[in-house]
Formats: sequence, C-alpha cells, structure tokens
Amino acid sequence: MKLVDIYYRMKKDINEIEKELSRAITTDQGILNQSANHLLKAGGKRIRPVFVLLSGHFGEYDFDKLKKVAAALELIHMATLVHDDVIDDADKRRGKLTVKAQWDNKIAMYTGDYIFAEALMLITEFENPEIHQTLSNAIVRMCEGEIEQIKDFNNWNQSLKQYLRRIKRKTALLIAISCKLGGLASNADLKTVRRLYQYGYNVGMAFQIVDDILDFTGTTEQLGKPAGSDLRQGNITIPALYALHYSNDKEKLQRMVKSDHLQEQMDEMVDIVRKSEGIDYSKELAQTYIQKAKKALMELPNIKERKTLLEISDFIADRTY
Amino acid sequence: MKLVDIYYRMKKDINEIEKELSRAITTDQGILNQSANHLLKAGGKRIRPVFVLLSGHFGEYDFDKLKKVAAALELIHMATLVHDDVIDDADKRRGKLTVKAQWDNKIAMYTGDYIFAEALMLITEFENPEIHQTLSNAIVRMCEGEIEQIKDFNNWNQSLKQYLRRIKRKTALLIAISCKLGGLASNADLKTVRRLYQYGYNVGMAFQIVDDILDFTGTTEQLGKPAGSDLRQGNITIPALYALHYSNDKEKLQRMVKSDHLQEQMDEMVDIVRKSEGIDYSKELAQTYIQKAKKALMELPNIKERKTLLEISDFIADRTY
Repeated sequence: MKLVDIYYRMKKDINEIEKELSRAITTDQGILNQSANHLLKAGGKRIRPVFVLLSGHFGEYDFDKLKKVAAALELIHMATLVHDDVIDDADKRRGKLTVKAQWDNKIAMYTGDYIFAEALMLITEFENPEIHQTLSNAIVRMCEGEIEQIKDFNNWNQSLKQYLRRIKRKTALLIAISCKLGGLASNADLKTVRRLYQYGYNVGMAFQIVDDILDFTGTTEQLGKPAGSDLRQGNITIPALYALHYSNDKEKLQRMVKSDHLQEQMDEMVDIVRKSEGIDYSKELAQTYIQKAKKALMELPNIKERKTLLEISDFIADRTY
Repeated sequence: MKLVDIYYRMKKDINEIEKELSRAITTDQGILNQSANHLLKAGGKRIRPVFVLLSGHFGEYDFDKLKKVAAALELIHMATLVHDDVIDDADKRRGKLTVKAQWDNKIAMYTGDYIFAEALMLITEFENPEIHQTLSNAIVRMCEGEIEQIKDFNNWNQSLKQYLRRIKRKTALLIAISCKLGGLASNADLKTVRRLYQYGYNVGMAFQIVDDILDFTGTTEQLGKPAGSDLRQGNITIPALYALHYSNDKEKLQRMVKSDHLQEQMDEMVDIVRKSEGIDYSKELAQTYIQKAKKALMELPNIKERKTLLEISDFIADRTY
C-alpha cells in the first residue's frame, strides 16, 4: 500500500479541504491574497488533514466539523513554513519561490500572521475548551522550539536529547495534536484521544528523523535543494551528531567541526555523514518511534481507519522523498 | 480628571494584570523569556486592559475572568508591537531598545508569535464562541491592515478613506474589541456589547489620530524620537495628507512630494505640515470621533464606570503625550 493509494481513497474529502483552505485565505487585500495563495498552490502532502480525518473515525465522525479542524491545522503548518523561510533565509521550497523571496521578509511575516489568524477563525465555533487549549499550547511550544533551533544553530555540542526535544516541537507536536483534535472534535473518549495523540507524536518524530536522513541521502532532484542543506545552514541533525561521536571518521569530523574554515569543508563533511553509520543509526531510531506508534494504534478499536493509519506509519518509515 | 487619577483608582486591578502578564510570558526558554520580559518591562499605558475591566462592569463583573481577557488583549497588542518594529526597522520604542535591536529580526518574529500564542492560551477557558470569533476576526483584519500599511508607504495618492481604514485596523479595532470582550466575558446583553464596541471603536480612531498629530507637534523628549518620524519613514498620516491638499503651502508641498530628493527635504516638509491647517483639521476629526464615542456611552446604563469611560475619552482627545 502506497501513500498515493490512501490519498486516492480519500480524494473527495481532501478536495473539500483544499476548498476550505482556499476559502479561508481569500481576502480582498491584494498582496495578502497573492502571497497566501502562492503558498497554497505550492501544495504539500496535506498529511495533517489526513490525520485529523482518519482520527475522527474513532469518535462520532462528522466531516463538516472535522474539515474545519483539518484546514486549521494545515494553515498553522503553512504559517510556520512562511515564518521559517524568513529565518532560514530560504529562497525556494518544494521547487517554488518562497513568499519571502517573491515578496520580502515583511510581507512573509504578516502573511504568516494572517494565515495563522485565519486558522484560528476556523475553529472558533468549537465550544470545547480542550480543543482551544490543545492548539494554543502546541503553538506556544512550537515557538519555544523555533527559538531553541536558532540557539542550537551550528552548535555541535548538543545532545541527542536536545535534538529530540527540538524535532518534537518542530514537527511531532503538530502531527500529534492533529490526531488528538480529530478525536476531540468527534467526541471520542479520553483514552482514545490519548492513544491518537501517542500515535501522532511517535509518527511525527519518525517523520522528522526520516526527513533529516533524506536531507543527506536524497538527490538534488528529489529534495529540490542540494543534499546536506541542513548541515550547510547550521542545523545539526541526528545523522551528523551520531557521525560526530560514533562513526569511524569521527576524529576527522571532530577536527573539521572545530576548524575556522567550516564552510569550505562542507562538501566533505556532508560526504562523511552520508557514508557514516549515522544514517543507519537514524533509520533505527525512526523505526523505534514507528513501533511505538503502532503499539498505540493496536490499543485502538479495530476499524478500517486503524489499518490506514498503520499503513501511513509504514510509509513514513520507508519513504524516500 | 487626569488619566493618572483613573489609573490610581484602578491600581490594585492593574497590578494584578501585570502579574498575569508576567505569568503568561514566563518560559524556561532563556532567550524567549528575556525578550518577552524586556518588552513587558518597557511598560505601556495598559489602556486595553483598562477598557476591558471598565466594560466588564456593564455585565456581571467577575475580575478573575476579566483579568484573563485583559491580559490577552495587552499581549496581542505587545505581539503586534514586536512585529511592527521589524517592519519599521525601529531600534527604540518608548526610549528602550526594541527586541529586534537588542536581539535580531528572527528573535523578534518568534517572540511576537510566542506572545501571541500565550495570549490565546489565556482565553481558552471561555466557552462562548463569540469571544473567540471576535478576537480571531480582529486579528485577521489587523494583519490585512499591516499589509495595507506597507502598501501605502510613501503613497501620497491615498485618500482620507484609505487612511481611516488603515488606522481602524491598526489601532481602533483592538480597542473596540477590548470593550466588546469585556462585555461579552461578563455576559452583558447584546445591545450593551454593541455600544461598548461603538465606544471603543470611536475612542480608538481618535486615539490614533491624536497619535498621528503628536508625531508632528511633540518634542523629541515627549516622543522618544524626532518629530515627523512617521513622515520620514513613509507613513503618510492625516495631518500631512490634509496639508498636501488644502493648506496654504499645498503647492510647495506637492512639488516636494514629487521631487527625486524627498529625503533631503524632509525637515522642511515636516515643518510645513507642523505649521499647516492639517493639525487643526486633524484635531477636529479626532473630536468628531470622541463625540461619537460619547454618544454611544450615553446609551449605556449610568453606572460610575460610564463616567470613567467618559473621562478617558476626554483625556484621549486632549492628551499631549
């Protein structure tokens, strides 16, 4: 089972969510309309909406309610991307010009703010305070994580724990609450909601670890940017951290890291990490999270969406793009 | 009656709100804690919390509920200030270094995002969807307004209508919803809530117009920046627009505006506006809004907080700082 088959089965619902997204960001403010639509058209996996919808089946499934939650989470994801592009000084994402490149940092900042506010608009109708608390709390943690990431830039002294904490906030949290909010919006019971969160959290951790692996192992064509971009930008991820401490080339790498000519040696450093044991170790780590995600799933009722979530976790572990 | 007397009477409540603000932004993420606290300590009039609390008296006054709403609105105001400083490239605000100057644009962006998210956290406990809708909708409009402001930079062709729309979104909306949310959180009836909104909207419009006047008429000491800063930055406000179209020096000003050496003539332009009829016209315009605010007030029950709101509107019209 490939992800594309899962999407095919959910095609009608995902199309509805695309419409919801488009409705949400439409504004008569010309520039904002263009910048937000530019972002929308750049596409994406819409994996957060998929998680919301599938999780909704573990309660009283109501598509009209869930589609708002699903669109809200995708918009929050999009808003963080626009702001991240400012930080990363990124000109391209998914092969398209970023908002900050096509317009400028100022427009990108307010486009992010705007998309974020529109996301909030979508969930105002929910009266359950836990829905609002879950979302706001996640956003607070995500912001803390973004600042952590800036602080950890070019920091080769960071621990595995620091890395894990960072990717939790960067990626896993939003996926975890996508599952949780799908459950909450469907009035699923507390235990179910907690397991959905656990599934989402672990899948999200694996998702980011695999992303960090692919940044080293992928081709420029697959990635839409040169391999090793994370490292080049100073974002030290787990394959590099492992290589630094445990690979056969660790001493060489340690010398290079301390060198004053870091940027000039970058190609060689990327190459060392790529060929190092750091890749396999990271794959195993991702696999550990996938197993935990599956364990959480197995404690949920055996409906057909459980199988779909299982397939998604397998896809995430094995994906090559 | 001076504003300081009103604050003195409300001192205990305002102190509680300061504590609430401080609690809300405290985080174990060091940089974020510092940047957010830096902002908090820079102070401010806390006028939005004052409006929330006073408006709450027109319903079932419950300080524990209202203080959360009050703190949330002040935090949202603070978040917009941090993001605005990035846009305006401002190094100082109220005589203190801005977050973007003390740290950098990236930190400022995420500090804004973070404070904003903490604001949302504070109001998650409210189950009334209208509270969330009012807030989210205002934020959407404010973002649209920010982009308008960027678009209107250095645009001497703008109309009075454009200016009014911009200051509505920039300032009046947040003050209007401070009053509205004070009413809503206290379960005031719909008519009362609507009048509170009207009061806040009109007071907010007057507040910004007076701000735009003071930017020309104030001294460097009063303003914490040189007079005419708005104009120098390309933010064309009503005193300048009026002077351009109706003052005795209009032809001179029109020539200068079209000149290729705009910046070099700035001192002279600021001086022309300062001495022009644009100042008096703007004062009258502010007064019109104050009258509308008072009219809305007069339709509210005659409790002592109505008198306080009246005094505040008089203060806003006459303030010199």
